[in-house]
Amino acid sequence: MRATVFHGTRDVRVEEVPDATLREPTDVVVRVTHACICGSDLWPYRGELLIYGETGRTGHEFMGVVEDVGAEVRTLKKGDRVIAPFAFSDGVCEYCSGGLHTSCVQGGYWGAQNDGGQGEAVRVPWADGTLVKLPGEVDLTDSRLAAAVATLTDVMCTGHHAAVSAGVGPGATAVVVGDGAVGLCGVLAAKRLGAERIIVMGRHEDRLAVARTFGATDEVRERGAEAIARVQELTGGGAPHVLECVGTGQATETAIGVCRAGGTVGHVGVPAEPISLMDVYGRNIALRGGVAPARAYQPALLADVLAGVIDPSPVLDVTVGLDGVPGGYAAMDERRAIKVLVEL
Amino acid sequence: MRATVFHGTRDVRVEEVPDATLREPTDVVVRVTHACICGSDLWPYRGELLIYGETGRTGHEFMGVVEDVGAEVRTLKKGDRVIAPFAFSDGVCEYCSGGLHTSCVQGGYWGAQNDGGQGEAVRVPWADGTLVKLPGEVDLTDSRLAAAVATLTDVMCTGHHAAVSAGVGPGATAVVVGDGAVGLCGVLAAKRLGAERIIVMGRHEDRLAVARTFGATDEVRERGAEAIARVQELTGGGAPHVLECVGTGQATETAIGVCRAGGTVGHVGVPAEPISLMDVYGRNIALRGGVAPARAYQPALLADVLAGVIDPSPVLDVTVGLDGVPGGYAAMDERRAIKVLVEL
Repeated sequence: MRATVFHGTRDVRVEEVPDATLREPTDVVVRVTHACICGSDLWPYRGELLIYGETGRTGHEFMGVVEDVGAEVRTLKKGDRVIAPFAFSDGVCEYCSGGLHTSCVQGGYWGAQNDGGQGEAVRVPWADGTLVKLPGEVDLTDSRLAAAVATLTDVMCTGHHAAVSAGVGPGATAVVVGDGAVGLCGVLAAKRLGAERIIVMGRHEDRLAVARTFGATDEVRERGAEAIARVQELTGGGAPHVLECVGTGQATETAIGVCRAGGTVGHVGVPAEPISLMDVYGRNIALRGGVAPARAYQPALLADVLAGVIDPSPVLDVTVGLDGVPGGYAAMDERRAIKVLVEL
Repeated sequence: MRATVFHGTRDVRVEEVPDATLREPTDVVVRVTHACICGSDLWPYRGELLIYGETGRTGHEFMGVVEDVGAEVRTLKKGDRVIAPFAFSDGVCEYCSGGLHTSCVQGGYWGAQNDGGQGEAVRVPWADGTLVKLPGEVDLTDSRLAAAVATLTDVMCTGHHAAVSAGVGPGATAVVVGDGAVGLCGVLAAKRLGAERIIVMGRHEDRLAVARTFGATDEVRERGAEAIARVQELTGGGAPHVLECVGTGQATETAIGVCRAGGTVGHVGVPAEPISLMDVYGRNIALRGGVAPARAYQPALLADVLAGVIDPSPVLDVTVGLDGVPGGYAAMDERRAIKVLVEL
C-alpha cells in the first residue's frame, strides 16, 4: 500500500510500504478515506521534535472504513465507517474508564513504527476501545460534513479539551491564546459550552475571520506585554478561563498573564520550553490540561456535528489527495493553509 | 519600639525603630505577643530573594493584643486578642469575597517598608478585614496552645492550602513532598481532610517522627528518580493527590513525577526555578495552588485547634525571646530547628 513516510527536515514522501494487516485478534484494519495534517506533524517536518522517529510513518488523524476484523473484535464489522482518535486505547483500563484514554495502560500513538494516518490503511489496536462508529446514514460524500467529522480525530477534541480544562461554562468570559486550528476549535468549543465573551488572541486576519464565525466576541492582535495589558483592560483584571493553544514559552506566559487571579489556564499546546511558575504561584492560577483524551469527547462532539450544532469544518481550508500530502505540509509550514484535509 | 531588621546576608538585628502607630482610620495597632520565623524568611537571610528589601523590617507571622484602634474600625476594640494572616486584606473586594485574600485589591504583605511581625508592635491595615479575633477564654499562657494558634498565621494554613489545592478528601491517597514545617502541616491537613494514606517524602528523622504523629502512613527517604520510583511502586502508578511543599525545581519535578496521570499537584512552595511542563502535559496532571489565602482558612482551622481536633504545635520546636530572633534564624538556617516561635 502507499503511505507517507518522514525522512528528515522538510522531507516527507508518499511511498510504497508493507500492507496494514491484522496482528492481534483485537485489531481491525481500516481503509482510510480522510486524513488530516496536524500542527504537531510540523515539528518533525521543521526538525524540532522527532515524534515519528528518524524515519517512520506519519499522521495521527484519520477516518475510514473497516476492511478486516480480528477474531476477538465484538462491536465492529467489515464496512463500518469509523473515526479514530489520535491515540489508541483499550477502553477498559482505569484511565479509559475515567475518561483519560491518552494514559491507557495498553495504549499508544499512531505513526513511527505503527501505521500512520496519512496512508491508505491502518492497523488499529484495541479496535473496540479505540474506534467510534459513524451512523450508517451519514453522507460523507458531502465534503463539508466529512471535513467537520474529520476534525474530531484530533483538533476539535483538543480545542474542546482546552475549554473543558479551563473550566468554561455558561456565561463565562474566556480568552483563547492562538488563532491556529486548535485555537479556532477552542473558540468553537467555548461557545458550545456557553461562554458569553470569547476573546481570541492572534494576528492572522483570515483566521480571526473564522474565529468570529465560531463565536469570538473580541480580538487582540498585540503580542507579549502589550497583549496582556490589552486583555487586562478588556476584562478588568484578566479572564477566569484561558485556553492556551500554542505551547511556546511566550504563549504560555501570555496565557498566565491574561488569567484572572484564582482563574484557570487550560493548556493543550505542547509545552516546548520550561516556564516560571512565579506568577501562577503569586496569583493562585491553576494549570490544567495536556494531551486531549479525544476518545472521551468524540461521541458527544460527533452527535453535535451530525445535528448541525457545531461545524468545525472551516479549519480545514485546503484539501489534497494522498499524493498531495508533501505539498500540504509545505502549505501549512508556510502558513498558506490553516490545516489540510487529505481525501483518499 | 524594638523590631527585627534585615541588613544583609545572615545579618538580621533587633534594634530600635519608630513606634507602630495608626495611619488610616481603618488601622489598628497590635502589640505582638507571639511571632514565628518562616522558612521564607530564610531566603533573604541566605541572600536568595530580598522579600524584605535591601534593608527592612522582617517577619510576617504574628499574633497579639489590640492596643490602638482607628476611628472606622467596627469589629475590634482595645484588649482584643487577635491572629494575623501573613498578608493584610480589606475583606470586602471581589477576591476576598471569593476566598482569595492574597489577591485583595487593597492588600499587601508585612515587613519591608510595612511593620514586620518580628517586633514589639505592628500597624495593621484594614483591621476589620485582616484580623481574626480569638475567643476571650483562650488561655495563651498555655505555651502549647499558643504555639498551635501561632501556626495559623501562616504555616498551618499553607499546608492546608496544599492539601485543598491537591483535592484531598475522605479516603484519599496523598503524597507530601517535603518534611519542613509546611510539609508537616500538609500531612496534618491531609489527615484532617480525611486522607487514608499519606506518604511523606523527606530525610530528616526528627521531622519524619513528627510526620508520623501527624498521620503519615508511609515514608520515602530516597531522592530524585529513586524517590519517584519508590512512590510509583507504593501506589501502583502514582498518587492522585500530591502536596508540593518545597518549591525547588527538583521538588516540583518530584511532585509531578509521583502524581498519577489525571491527578493534581497542590503546590505551595515558592517556585524558585523554571520547570518543564512536558510530563504534566503528557499525563494531564493539574497544577493548583500558590500563596495560601490564610485569612480564608483561619476561622475553621482555629476552631479545630481550640477544640483539640488538630495540634500543629510540634512544628514549632524551638522558642526564643525577641532578642533571640537572630539566633533563631541561624538555628533554622543550620537545621537545628524545624521552626522557631518568638515569645515577647
